[in-house]
Amino acid sequence: MFKVTFRFENGEAVEGFAAAEEKLLDVARKTNVAIDAPCSGNGSCGKCRIRLLNGTLDSPRTRHISEEEYAQGWRLSCCSKVESDIEVEVPDIASAYRSRMKVADLSSPEEIAIFQKAKNDVEEAGILLHNDMELIDVTMNVPTLDDTMPDNERLMRALKKQTGAAMVRLPYTVIRKLAEVLRESAFSIRCVVGKSRNGNLFVYDVFPKEESVVIGGLAIDIGTTTVSALLIDMLSGEILGKASSGNGQIRYGADVINRIIESTKPGGRDKLQKAIIEETINPMIHQMCRSAKFSCKRIYRMCVAGNTTMNHLFAGVDAESVRMEPYIPTFYKTNSLYANNLGISINPDAHIIIAPNIGSYVGGDITAGTFVSMIWNKPEFSLLIDLGTNGELVFGNSDFMMSCACSAGPAFEGGDISCGMRATDGAIEACTIDKESMEPTYQIVGEEGQKPIGLCGSGIIDVISELFTAGIINPKGKFIREGERIHRDKYGMGSYVLAFAKDSDTGRDVEITEVDIDNFIRAKGAIFSAIRTMLSSLDFDVSMIENVYVAGGIGSGINMKNAVTIGMFPDIPLDKFHYIGNSSLSGSYTMLLSNEAERKTYEVAGNMTYLELSTVPGYMDEFVAACFLPHTDTDMFPSVKQG
Amino acid sequence: MFKVTFRFENGEAVEGFAAAEEKLLDVARKTNVAIDAPCSGNGSCGKCRIRLLNGTLDSPRTRHISEEEYAQGWRLSCCSKVESDIEVEVPDIASAYRSRMKVADLSSPEEIAIFQKAKNDVEEAGILLHNDMELIDVTMNVPTLDDTMPDNERLMRALKKQTGAAMVRLPYTVIRKLAEVLRESAFSIRCVVGKSRNGNLFVYDVFPKEESVVIGGLAIDIGTTTVSALLIDMLSGEILGKASSGNGQIRYGADVINRIIESTKPGGRDKLQKAIIEETINPMIHQMCRSAKFSCKRIYRMCVAGNTTMNHLFAGVDAESVRMEPYIPTFYKTNSLYANNLGISINPDAHIIIAPNIGSYVGGDITAGTFVSMIWNKPEFSLLIDLGTNGELVFGNSDFMMSCACSAGPAFEGGDISCGMRATDGAIEACTIDKESMEPTYQIVGEEGQKPIGLCGSGIIDVISELFTAGIINPKGKFIREGERIHRDKYGMGSYVLAFAKDSDTGRDVEITEVDIDNFIRAKGAIFSAIRTMLSSLDFDVSMIENVYVAGGIGSGINMKNAVTIGMFPDIPLDKFHYIGNSSLSGSYTMLLSNEAERKTYEVAGNMTYLELSTVPGYMDEFVAACFLPHTDTDMFPSVKQG
Repeated sequence: MFKVTFRFENGEAVEGFAAAEEKLLDVARKTNVAIDAPCSGNGSCGKCRIRLLNGTLDSPRTRHISEEEYAQGWRLSCCSKVESDIEVEVPDIASAYRSRMKVADLSSPEEIAIFQKAKNDVEEAGILLHNDMELIDVTMNVPTLDDTMPDNERLMRALKKQTGAAMVRLPYTVIRKLAEVLRESAFSIRCVVGKSRNGNLFVYDVFPKEESVVIGGLAIDIGTTTVSALLIDMLSGEILGKASSGNGQIRYGADVINRIIESTKPGGRDKLQKAIIEETINPMIHQMCRSAKFSCKRIYRMCVAGNTTMNHLFAGVDAESVRMEPYIPTFYKTNSLYANNLGISINPDAHIIIAPNIGSYVGGDITAGTFVSMIWNKPEFSLLIDLGTNGELVFGNSDFMMSCACSAGPAFEGGDISCGMRATDGAIEACTIDKESMEPTYQIVGEEGQKPIGLCGSGIIDVISELFTAGIINPKGKFIREGERIHRDKYGMGSYVLAFAKDSDTGRDVEITEVDIDNFIRAKGAIFSAIRTMLSSLDFDVSMIENVYVAGGIGSGINMKNAVTIGMFPDIPLDKFHYIGNSSLSGSYTMLLSNEAERKTYEVAGNMTYLELSTVPGYMDEFVAACFLPHTDTDMFPSVKQG
Repeated sequence: MFKVTFRFENGEAVEGFAAAEEKLLDVARKTNVAIDAPCSGNGSCGKCRIRLLNGTLDSPRTRHISEEEYAQGWRLSCCSKVESDIEVEVPDIASAYRSRMKVADLSSPEEIAIFQKAKNDVEEAGILLHNDMELIDVTMNVPTLDDTMPDNERLMRALKKQTGAAMVRLPYTVIRKLAEVLRESAFSIRCVVGKSRNGNLFVYDVFPKEESVVIGGLAIDIGTTTVSALLIDMLSGEILGKASSGNGQIRYGADVINRIIESTKPGGRDKLQKAIIEETINPMIHQMCRSAKFSCKRIYRMCVAGNTTMNHLFAGVDAESVRMEPYIPTFYKTNSLYANNLGISINPDAHIIIAPNIGSYVGGDITAGTFVSMIWNKPEFSLLIDLGTNGELVFGNSDFMMSCACSAGPAFEGGDISCGMRATDGAIEACTIDKESMEPTYQIVGEEGQKPIGLCGSGIIDVISELFTAGIINPKGKFIREGERIHRDKYGMGSYVLAFAKDSDTGRDVEITEVDIDNFIRAKGAIFSAIRTMLSSLDFDVSMIENVYVAGGIGSGINMKNAVTIGMFPDIPLDKFHYIGNSSLSGSYTMLLSNEAERKTYEVAGNMTYLELSTVPGYMDEFVAACFLPHTDTDMFPSVKQG
């Protein structure tokens, strides 16, 4: 038995024990030390690096570790056997994820155009992009010895008189600053108010009248892997700031199930809530506010869209019953949350709107996304596919809607893929491969001259599709040709090198391995089989789909033809596919900006039925059949067959 | 110029500078170091002790410092001149006050009887001692795969069905624990709810059904010098715990004016709020809850009665405008405060009711006290006298009420008096003095055999009255006889020894000095002149007063005849005087326990007019005339004249 000391970047350390020759990754797992290992320990992804500080590890130098790095002590934990008491340094998986995902949504002109279109669609459906918040200027009589009404009453009366409101509420934060603001501005002030439907006023804030005040709002999409946020002007709807970040909870598990399990351990709930709020959302708020020169206390409302587990962990609410039969969440919708309850760095009285869940595995991200997709407003049948860590589908029209969820894993966001990354600088976002020479031609996100770093979701689809149509891989995703760009490891497992070390930005090959392809095939298989299963349960056929709305962080560069080629999407005319970007975020934005959109989203959620795929006989068979390129039943893909 | 380092018990230190021969007390004051010096530095009270650690002070050994103490470095700062760089230790004035005042209100059977009578009076006036909080048991269907309503909706529906409520609100704290409580108890739970007048429910808390739950409430009287609290059962009204403490703000000034000034310095508001909440109220809550074995999170409502400055500083609200013309507070009444806003260690959603202020210098302590005095419910004219650090008066009947305030100083609570103390163990609470021998006979609070420690308010009244009627002091309070018990200092200032060092519990003489008497005469003069001025302004005469209700911490032992003898109260038949105890606290209790009492108190406050004494011509003359025993105009005190 050897002692293993894991040291972290933040100075903390954890001790575990290893049997002789035990693999370090396994020791880490049983000691509950999070190490990023998407390939599950077969040495292919190269992400499970640790640095040996003391002691002996039996550890080969793989192609993922350069000679220099090896000399510095870097090893892959999955290939390293413990041979003495050791001390290793573990990179912080959460900060690694965060930095890999630091580029905000809505950064490219394409994404902005998609967002604008969604906003226009909502407005064209007659939904006012307007909310109950406003700025009201009010001037009071300056008190005298003969007019000694206290400050709060003076303000409430003036507001009632001016607006006709029957009731005015001043929260503590306003009571606390009122005396100074009134006297600073000779009793002429500017109020940030929310007006309820019955005309009552809630005064969020007060300022001297001359102060220029923007009412801030915060729209957030909490993804299992990635969190995206928009800081907006609640009056104009203008976007003042944007940010994306890896979800800090990643260190407690890649998917919702593992996070729930972690949250049920002692102190776990607070730990997971802290990871999303203090480590992820608050830094994003500060970053946006710093860039926009905006005071975060002037953010008076927040809207959160996320899956059911994400919004339960965000609220610090027990998520165990989300996971356990009969799968009952604490809430579908709730209006009980305020910023000060959760310690969010915005105005403490800011109300937190949560996009409604409709079941344990279909949450607010989908209801918000469905709202902006406009499926609910059309007579024709549409399909919404949200490609997240959980894949979620909605099918229906203005008469009915059905939803389901499947576990796709993080592959669409570049997780589970050795060279995977988000669609940010250095990502290969599109690719063709010459059938003869097997030489690739690709398009890279970033400025001219940017060298490749890795592959984002849309790039992976292209590469797999091209490898398949060029006959380099077979329908099972195994390499069946050889050449300069095809590598084989000692077990014969193949990989395709998109960029050799000398041409990459990292000094290492940018490649895609059989394991990556396999991970991706399972992800796309989960999506396709879910589509089939849901449609079958309704006695519908893919030919009856008029529109397919593809949402998620996969990137606007997604090539629908290639996605069909690999059997990810059904083989229907390509003009029916529409990429609608991060619809959870745009849905969160519309709910935040518009009371009518908020109400409508609740209505949409209320009208949606939920299909639990695991209870549908035949779903697993569908899944297995879909784990081929394009599918075991190639008749389903006539265009691919011809192609 | 010498450097002076003041060291505190908590390890902090502050540096100041002294001119040669400057008095240490003066150096402390200009350096903003709080030293307890009620006699204002004339060497008579002996409270301004510090301990010399290093350096030289020119400092006599006075009778307040024993030889042993002198050897240990103890000095009176008011008599010590700085002669070198020095370092001194300063006792914490606030902790000294706290320990001096550690006995709770309602400790004696007399006080409890007075409290009970007040409660009965309220009930006899037809006011229901009942509030909107209740326990509701509710049983829900256990969810199944076919009945997947989320927890919050399940509870809200069940409560609506059971109670007919149109709306049910679950705050964050309930949302957070709901899943576990429901599952722990098979969906049979006990709810703590508040029912609004329109029938809406607010669910404060949820417990498994079998749990025995008491709904706790907290009534507090925040005095400038002393804070008193009751922990109660909101359903039965039973008192579960009681506590008193010195107000931790004392270190920032003895009276409201000095506290306001301190609060306007940078960080001052937070400092004063922290002193009252974190250092005073929270420890009292913990102490009561510990004794009563009660969870402080089960306190769901709180009522605060205090003067306008006290409740503003409690709320952390700017009090500067309370002090400055035109004397406008931020609020008279407010419903904006919750426990979580202020960091009070009770349930975070507990609403904080504030007894309403009616002006800058007549606050909730008086409106709450007026309510329980029942003045407002009687046709005859009554006078309420609240003997606190601020003396406050209310005069009127069921048709009208007028109030005013005067600054009496802390003498009634034993402050400003060298051997002054609260009515706790060792306090001389009643006294007679033999006219011939000048020997005293006294009654001491505590068990048989308790030796005297000092004098409480009622004892001081007796001693001064007895000294006066025995001809030991003259109407100006100066000693005019000599004897074993009369001491003279080097300036000829007299004092009367009630107990010699050998007979006291402290090893020092228990005595009353001319300075003490002078302080007390000014305090009683302030009260009497306020009564006269207010009555004159209404064209009333003392003979028209039917009842005098005396409130405050002076103690149930107060001898009304002696109080008349020294000219503190008007010379009317003694059976018209009634001591009603700490009416601010009992008023706070009734407001907390009864929604009707709460409403009535707002109404009483709304009907009360306020007289600003300083604006009444002749008030100062009245005051000067009243600073005699019993008064310059002895015709006002026929019974004393005969006496």
